[in-house]
Amino acid sequence: MAERGRVELLEQRVRELERELEVARGGRAAGRTRIETMSPEVTDSNPYSRLMALKRMGIVKDYEKIRTFTVAIVGVGGVGSVTAEMLTRCGIGKLLLFDYDKVELANMNRLFFQPHQAGLSKVQAAEHTLRNINPDVQFEVHNYNITTLDNFEHFMDRISNGALEEGKPVDLVLSCVDNFEARMAINTACNELGQIWMESGVSENAVSGHIQLIIPGESACFACAPPLVVAANIDEKTLKREGVCAASLPTTMGVVAGILVQNVLKYLLNFGTVSYYLGYNAMQDFFPTMAMKPNPQCSDQNCRRQQENYKIKEAAQPKQEESDQEEEIVHEDNDWGIELVSETTEDELKAASGPVPDLPVGITVAYTIPNKVIYNVTAEETVAESGESLEDLMAKMRNL
Amino acid sequence: MAERGRVELLEQRVRELERELEVARGGRAAGRTRIETMSPEVTDSNPYSRLMALKRMGIVKDYEKIRTFTVAIVGVGGVGSVTAEMLTRCGIGKLLLFDYDKVELANMNRLFFQPHQAGLSKVQAAEHTLRNINPDVQFEVHNYNITTLDNFEHFMDRISNGALEEGKPVDLVLSCVDNFEARMAINTACNELGQIWMESGVSENAVSGHIQLIIPGESACFACAPPLVVAANIDEKTLKREGVCAASLPTTMGVVAGILVQNVLKYLLNFGTVSYYLGYNAMQDFFPTMAMKPNPQCSDQNCRRQQENYKIKEAAQPKQEESDQEEEIVHEDNDWGIELVSETTEDELKAASGPVPDLPVGITVAYTIPNKVIYNVTAEETVAESGESLEDLMAKMRNL
Repeated sequence: MAERGRVELLEQRVRELERELEVARGGRAAGRTRIETMSPEVTDSNPYSRLMALKRMGIVKDYEKIRTFTVAIVGVGGVGSVTAEMLTRCGIGKLLLFDYDKVELANMNRLFFQPHQAGLSKVQAAEHTLRNINPDVQFEVHNYNITTLDNFEHFMDRISNGALEEGKPVDLVLSCVDNFEARMAINTACNELGQIWMESGVSENAVSGHIQLIIPGESACFACAPPLVVAANIDEKTLKREGVCAASLPTTMGVVAGILVQNVLKYLLNFGTVSYYLGYNAMQDFFPTMAMKPNPQCSDQNCRRQQENYKIKEAAQPKQEESDQEEEIVHEDNDWGIELVSETTEDELKAASGPVPDLPVGITVAYTIPNKVIYNVTAEETVAESGESLEDLMAKMRNL
Repeated sequence: MAERGRVELLEQRVRELERELEVARGGRAAGRTRIETMSPEVTDSNPYSRLMALKRMGIVKDYEKIRTFTVAIVGVGGVGSVTAEMLTRCGIGKLLLFDYDKVELANMNRLFFQPHQAGLSKVQAAEHTLRNINPDVQFEVHNYNITTLDNFEHFMDRISNGALEEGKPVDLVLSCVDNFEARMAINTACNELGQIWMESGVSENAVSGHIQLIIPGESACFACAPPLVVAANIDEKTLKREGVCAASLPTTMGVVAGILVQNVLKYLLNFGTVSYYLGYNAMQDFFPTMAMKPNPQCSDQNCRRQQENYKIKEAAQPKQEESDQEEEIVHEDNDWGIELVSETTEDELKAASGPVPDLPVGITVAYTIPNKVIYNVTAEETVAESGESLEDLMAKMRNL
């Protein structure tokens, strides 16, 4: 009898705990159910009311269209995770996430991941959190490094076929990676496929960042205007052992994710001016913009092919008709087909790049001018992307 | 016998579920333990390694000092919650949070809160999440509206005495509220106490925002350059019933929180240039900056008193000695003691303010120019703060 009473109490406790667990995990019991149609209704229980209000405010014509788009995000770290969360909360149709890293306590100085997720794969932890936030979004996650041969082929296949309607390409690829090799892999894939993508990056000293829109054949690709690649003579493991790591801040990464997703929304939902390049210098609160034409001598043959296709497409189009639909890049000719739209002077840029840190041999911080540029992409790299570096780079390219 | 076996199994299941629940809630078992001293050690388990790296990178001299500071955040919504999360992840000493609102599903288009928190008070939900993220931070939360008489007194008392060392004032107050009345209450409190604070705001059409640093007596307060207050002839409840609500985006709010906390870090840890005003126009990716002197005829007597104190303090200081420690506001005289540092032309501002939405009578969007300005702060208000509006305003003030 006592045993039977004990069983009943325990069974009750199990049911209680199971309910609490579901609540704690933000599961269906406590989260929200799926919503079939986005409604503009202003009620406390409508997660889309403040987004649908963009229509009434005259900002976006057709907000519901967001549900038809698929975006692939490569790199789910400090920038990529917040990017994924913003798009999820905006109600994007489908997200593809690529990363091979695990969540660590060392990531806790950036937004999104939480200490109890340490040890989980980043894509798995992200998918779990994002599904709870918005069950209307479809997720497809890949826990691998896109730069190995097999994975690269699979990556190409998924961005070619992984849209909401299987077999159709994604609408946009976002690069939120932290190294040159992965950026180059995305660049190669997108040039081959003619896939439009956006680049993002944050400097190793944590106080600069940028976003860039790359339309193959139309704007400069990552190989057209190779960034100043600074090679370290020591490999990454040695660096870690010796206690050297890049700095990062949730602020800079949050701003970069914010301007990246804003550019994505403007591009997909057709409002405002889509930026080709937007930089962020946190030391001076300075935001340079520019646009770059592709380099006709680009080392990537697919970029050169896309440039030819773009010329043919441009020539075939009736003039002026689309002029109020799309923003044009201001093209001005120079030796390299690269043009700075920013009115920023070199001195302003120099002043904005902050103090030069005291670093071990071989390590240079992005957004400062390295003493010596070595085009060696096998070791630790940083990417410099200020307007000044570009001019520096053009001078160097002329000397090659 | 069978019953006894059943009890054992159930007891085991209860233990399992309790463990899982602790993990799901991000409790001690799964989160992280407190850390006594910030270490620069580069290990996967050190949540401060990437922040301490700011020292080695030459950006911040003494990052550990972050632990000595207390920041009060008023408003834990789209901007305030992300602001609190960023400061928590940066390892701030203590946070005071003030809000009287509840989490709703309608908030899910912005970062931070999750659907399973719907119904909880914002400060309670925020404290729970933030403690899990960083147990080293101290939290003090107040679930009330600071604008009522009793609460205002308590608010004044807490910002005067609520620092890490009880009895000392907080280091900074951050305004992350969404209405004029609350901003005015913070302004009144900070002028009386001589408390340095930062303002933040996002426009009702979701595509503009700003941050502002206010040093009582030194830079213009919220009453010195009264924003263009646009009154609605209908009250807020009617508006809600009629299906009118402001738009919001996680992108714009994330960027505003990012530039706000970046300014806080620069101010507290003494690096880079602290901005007096930084705007964000998402339509054009345009970031105006300016600095404003206080108005000698400010309607707030405590502001005028602080201006006198500042003059006395300035006169007593030996000239040039502190010139490389602190950034100075460029002061240029005009009738109103207000000066625009931004080089932006009126046309640029007009172009940047986006399309004018079709709104119900009495509702005007911030960052566009209202037809008629009514100084009536009892109904729905919006705050306009572009450079252009300021000139408009000065003309109107002359006519008063």
